[in-house]
Amino acid sequence: MKLKFGMVGGGNGAFIGAFHRQGAIMDDLAELAAGCFSRRWDKNTECAESWGVRDMSRVYHDYQEMAQAEGAREDGIDFVSIVTPNNTHYPAAKAFLEQGIHVVCDKPLTMTVAEAEELAALAKDKGLLFAVTYTYAGYAIIRQAREMVRAGAIGKLLHIRAEFPQEWFIVAQATGVSEQAPWRLDKSQAGESGCTADMCTHIEHLVSAMSGLHPEQVLAQFDFCLGHVLENNVNVLAKYPGGVTGTLWASQVATGHELDLSVELFGDKGSIRWTHKDNNAIWYTPVNEAPQYITIGRDYTCPESSRLMRGITGAPVGFSEAFGNIYRSFMMALAAHKAGTEDPSYTYPTVDDGVWGMKFIHACLESHRQGNAWVPLG
Amino acid sequence: MKLKFGMVGGGNGAFIGAFHRQGAIMDDLAELAAGCFSRRWDKNTECAESWGVRDMSRVYHDYQEMAQAEGAREDGIDFVSIVTPNNTHYPAAKAFLEQGIHVVCDKPLTMTVAEAEELAALAKDKGLLFAVTYTYAGYAIIRQAREMVRAGAIGKLLHIRAEFPQEWFIVAQATGVSEQAPWRLDKSQAGESGCTADMCTHIEHLVSAMSGLHPEQVLAQFDFCLGHVLENNVNVLAKYPGGVTGTLWASQVATGHELDLSVELFGDKGSIRWTHKDNNAIWYTPVNEAPQYITIGRDYTCPESSRLMRGITGAPVGFSEAFGNIYRSFMMALAAHKAGTEDPSYTYPTVDDGVWGMKFIHACLESHRQGNAWVPLG
Amino acid sequence: MKLKFGMVGGGNGAFIGAFHRQGAIMDDLAELAAGCFSRRWDKNTECAESWGVRDMSRVYHDYQEMAQAEGAREDGIDFVSIVTPNNTHYPAAKAFLEQGIHVVCDKPLTMTVAEAEELAALAKDKGLLFAVTYTYAGYAIIRQAREMVRAGAIGKLLHIRAEFPQEWFIVAQATGVSEQAPWRLDKSQAGESGCTADMCTHIEHLVSAMSGLHPEQVLAQFDFCLGHVLENNVNVLAKYPGGVTGTLWASQVATGHELDLSVELFGDKGSIRWTHKDNNAIWYTPVNEAPQYITIGRDYTCPESSRLMRGITGAPVGFSEAFGNIYRSFMMALAAHKAGTEDPSYTYPTVDDGVWGMKFIHACLESHRQGNAWVPLG
Amino acid sequence: MKLKFGMVGGGNGAFIGAFHRQGAIMDDLAELAAGCFSRRWDKNTECAESWGVRDMSRVYHDYQEMAQAEGAREDGIDFVSIVTPNNTHYPAAKAFLEQGIHVVCDKPLTMTVAEAEELAALAKDKGLLFAVTYTYAGYAIIRQAREMVRAGAIGKLLHIRAEFPQEWFIVAQATGVSEQAPWRLDKSQAGESGCTADMCTHIEHLVSAMSGLHPEQVLAQFDFCLGHVLENNVNVLAKYPGGVTGTLWASQVATGHELDLSVELFGDKGSIRWTHKDNNAIWYTPVNEAPQYITIGRDYTCPESSRLMRGITGAPVGFSEAFGNIYRSFMMALAAHKAGTEDPSYTYPTVDDGVWGMKFIHACLESHRQGNAWVPLG
Repeated sequence: MKLKFGMVGGGNGAFIGAFHRQGAIMDDLAELAAGCFSRRWDKNTECAESWGVRDMSRVYHDYQEMAQAEGAREDGIDFVSIVTPNNTHYPAAKAFLEQGIHVVCDKPLTMTVAEAEELAALAKDKGLLFAVTYTYAGYAIIRQAREMVRAGAIGKLLHIRAEFPQEWFIVAQATGVSEQAPWRLDKSQAGESGCTADMCTHIEHLVSAMSGLHPEQVLAQFDFCLGHVLENNVNVLAKYPGGVTGTLWASQVATGHELDLSVELFGDKGSIRWTHKDNNAIWYTPVNEAPQYITIGRDYTCPESSRLMRGITGAPVGFSEAFGNIYRSFMMALAAHKAGTEDPSYTYPTVDDGVWGMKFIHACLESHRQGNAWVPLG
Repeated sequence: MKLKFGMVGGGNGAFIGAFHRQGAIMDDLAELAAGCFSRRWDKNTECAESWGVRDMSRVYHDYQEMAQAEGAREDGIDFVSIVTPNNTHYPAAKAFLEQGIHVVCDKPLTMTVAEAEELAALAKDKGLLFAVTYTYAGYAIIRQAREMVRAGAIGKLLHIRAEFPQEWFIVAQATGVSEQAPWRLDKSQAGESGCTADMCTHIEHLVSAMSGLHPEQVLAQFDFCLGHVLENNVNVLAKYPGGVTGTLWASQVATGHELDLSVELFGDKGSIRWTHKDNNAIWYTPVNEAPQYITIGRDYTCPESSRLMRGITGAPVGFSEAFGNIYRSFMMALAAHKAGTEDPSYTYPTVDDGVWGMKFIHACLESHRQGNAWVPLG
Repeated sequence: MKLKFGMVGGGNGAFIGAFHRQGAIMDDLAELAAGCFSRRWDKNTECAESWGVRDMSRVYHDYQEMAQAEGAREDGIDFVSIVTPNNTHYPAAKAFLEQGIHVVCDKPLTMTVAEAEELAALAKDKGLLFAVTYTYAGYAIIRQAREMVRAGAIGKLLHIRAEFPQEWFIVAQATGVSEQAPWRLDKSQAGESGCTADMCTHIEHLVSAMSGLHPEQVLAQFDFCLGHVLENNVNVLAKYPGGVTGTLWASQVATGHELDLSVELFGDKGSIRWTHKDNNAIWYTPVNEAPQYITIGRDYTCPESSRLMRGITGAPVGFSEAFGNIYRSFMMALAAHKAGTEDPSYTYPTVDDGVWGMKFIHACLESHRQGNAWVPLG
Repeated sequence: MKLKFGMVGGGNGAFIGAFHRQGAIMDDLAELAAGCFSRRWDKNTECAESWGVRDMSRVYHDYQEMAQAEGAREDGIDFVSIVTPNNTHYPAAKAFLEQGIHVVCDKPLTMTVAEAEELAALAKDKGLLFAVTYTYAGYAIIRQAREMVRAGAIGKLLHIRAEFPQEWFIVAQATGVSEQAPWRLDKSQAGESGCTADMCTHIEHLVSAMSGLHPEQVLAQFDFCLGHVLENNVNVLAKYPGGVTGTLWASQVATGHELDLSVELFGDKGSIRWTHKDNNAIWYTPVNEAPQYITIGRDYTCPESSRLMRGITGAPVGFSEAFGNIYRSFMMALAAHKAGTEDPSYTYPTVDDGVWGMKFIHACLESHRQGNAWVPLG
């Protein structure tokens, strides 16, 4: 029996909405039953029809109406996907939580730490599941890395190196076009932060998805290259629990890099490296042994990662499958939740990770304001 | 208005069926309206429900019944996807063509050249579109390569180098498990040929998808490693029109290689190389200039490839999208066909490519039988 | 007519001495005429014989004797190579400069900034050439990068990313052996600094060899992993002239990395990336164009780099050739100097670069002591 | 006590002579004592002086004079290096062997199989060592691969894949310049064969250096691209002992490839891959385990390879060191030979390998003449 879900947003043509929708349905675990996809009604209903919503009475004018109506239905949606601009995440998520509806929300979770903490508390109070789509954590091999770290494959962590260089802003400026630029440059929609909220928070989460650690303190340096009003290049020194240090770099002006996220964890018994350019594999080097190239779905990989594979070994895995894996894991957990059983082996980025993300963003901003001082996270 | 399609096969749990189905629907251009997914009725209906077939009367016991019923309906399916074992491709495809239904069929097209030629003739007679899912040709960047070759970027072709090493057979033997092995090792289902029909035909097609050329003659050497009854390692020397030569290598016993298809075209003005390991990019080297690394969806790539991109530049593209692109191109061509316009810019592997594939397989077999003599293609 | 040179050190079996000696002679531009290679006399004379010193009266007990004797000879050495432990660099270099003998010295130049500045002033006063062997700057393609930056290929610099991860310390600790460890861990020989003086100064110099820039301020974080008394992992935020920022990372505990120096320069018109793993090539990406892979010795590379090539295009270039190129460039400049002509096209790391190195090391130490504050360079 | 060697050729400015000379001296195991470096006397003596020949009476007008004079001296050279054009190898090598002088000769060994066999017989009769400089076999990691294969790391060999694409001819034609072209295109100097003798014989040897196998039969296809009179693209199917098959491809018209030699060996327990682009490393994949990246000089590599390392782990190894390793191994074997002990652990390409090379070249030529028939080797 498939789960039923609804969407808020996704109809404005932005690529991210399509990734969410495909991610939710690609494993035949859910069907799209309701939504308010666009503020324009014609667009809204057009999306609903195209995307297979069977009952057009479940297409709504706004998320408030949708939350109330779906919350009141016997056969209401099991969960909602919120894929609107950042500033709507908080009120929309809150509306659905209050109606007892589980939530999947795009990142960054909210505009402020307080909003994020309020959502986390609300979800806990209501006993609801809440996923935040830190996409890159969804790749199956990331789960493999996590299990290896947990099992001690690299020993005690010493240092973390993570980066996310992109060139999109400098290319957009050169070509004079970018469909994403407008709302990203509008502080009222995007918040106070540029690539810290946009990209660096992805890095922070991915590090935690692999290592299990969130920073205790950060020292951030912002660059505003090419006259941009929001920072488009940021370097963060981070102190993690247990004396572990790390650096995080995100850039929107790194010519030659398309989406080059990478994370490397160094422990006293070995290291693990992952790069987005080769998203199905990790490099694992035990100290004083030859580096190993580990791909997904092998006899020697763990079931938590292998079960997230759809194709055959060696088949390229797309960005859409990273979304798919977050949705799949969320839905498997949700199915278990509904059945009254819990299956902790299906993990996904939660509302707590979303809170960490907001704390991270705001601590970086504060460090910048203080002239690159160390700032504790919340 | 979406197209309606049906499926024959796909319900037996093989991964390939899921790729076809997802490929057909991922761009919201088609909906699954009918099918006979499995010979077991309970499985058949279960699939239909899970996959969203709205009218359960359009779930059929076999392809004959389905072809007749759908051919007779006013609102019958626009096209059918045939994803059964190889020996059923021919009768199933024929049944639908005879009912005036367009066809997408998995490769290899048939068991014999004569069957393939009959299907090609039938499709032409009926004025029907017929795609054969040579998957790898679906990657957007392959289309970029084709357009560059056509435009003269590498000049006159001199030599072609293509290979497809895999380790699956040797790993399957080592571990004692392979869900694919049974029918692949059964000559009555898989035909006379092992990795020639399974993999080498993919290479032959991909070369043509990039270069526009099919071989005139082949000289093939078969190896039967580890006591396998069908060849699991094959090397082909090929003569293409215009004095162009090439080599094709496919292997199922190449430890260390998961799905490492690659093609390189050498011309008198430059070369183009593509590897499956980096499936979004080609290397282009003009003679006496620095090699360039060209990725999809850029200002400097052609619209025929860019329009096949779903995500953002740098986002990994999955195996499923290669299917999606063949389906999308086929459906765009079909929509144009139905509208009475033809749009030759949407290309896909056709029934004629399927015929070339069968000729290639059989010429290789014949060369092997003749002790590695040169054998012309049909 | 070949130049004549002497060596101080090099006989203790450390690999670095052999690299200097081979570097000096590999192009038949110089012959080894004198030296004090070891404090042990038998070792000293054995080296002299093995290495082809023709006149055994020019084998000396110590550098003082050697400097005086060679300085007094009509046919004295043209230059001396100093390859002793770090704490001897200063007095030895001074002794030869005072005798009017040109100097090549290993890095780091001295133990203190004051010593380095004294050597620089002395060399200037005496009109003597002084090279410091920042090895990695010697690769021919680094010179190509420098000329491209100078010519505006990447426009105005925005950001610099450089790193030098190694695993040697953690491997040495795991295996319990390291011939290098002893003096590197002895503060009286190695100085106050661990991998900052050992490796990070290489990064600092390489960045300047490519970009032309030295930092104005640094903020450094030191890690003392595994209970090491000197820092073995260091991250530096740097502010360069003109608002350019950068980060430098050096590590001796980065399992999986052998000698993985890399530098990437981001400008407003493009970027250049070099990695030691592929030491003959740079990646050059003009904004909104395809990345290019540029190797040495091509029609499209500059003469300043091409003339440093010894083999054929595509032939791997060894570590020894990086030394060879510094020596060759130094000797070509020296030959021009002796001939009364100057050829500024032959560049090499000079005593001024050595001073920058010492300032960099000491500013990093100071930043660490101040709790990661910004510290200006000298 | 160093060995004394002489050189025939090397003074004509070709890069290969310098590689031989540097290779012989780089480890301080030998000194250049005699030679006839050029047919022009002024050039000849100039080379002798520049290269440190101490006794100018040991500079000779031709190899005949040199062989006789050195053979007659009490302190005559221990071995000679022959680096002349291919057609002089045979008479020159013969002259020195007849004088009881050990020989190192460039490849291909001779012009005919009979000449090569005569040299091999002569060396055996005289009890002389004879190395042929198949350069690429000299890389330390190749020796690692050999020992692993010997120890059964990949089990029983199944298939071999080797290739050597280059672009030099097509670039030379495009630019109108190539210092190497003249004698390579002159059949009287270069022989009947183009890239088969020039490059494919390197592949044949490298395969044997890794696997221990030489082909029993070959089937060769020659291409004469761009109107070249000698083949510049060759594909060889090979049958090795024990049912092992292989393919070898060499090309001089493969745009985008500088010197891209690679070999991959597939066995029933694993595979080993080496590429010249990453000349210090091999990939080793045991069946059903993760691929491993093995570099030289590690705790887990064999002493036969580790002792050929000069620098530190991770330091790039140059083309010159491949020569150096052949010379070093030859000289260590020669020193043992002179001491009356034999050390079979120092291996190098011998005159027997040179004979195999000639048999291979001529069998390929014969296969081409017979329209791509299978031709046995000698």
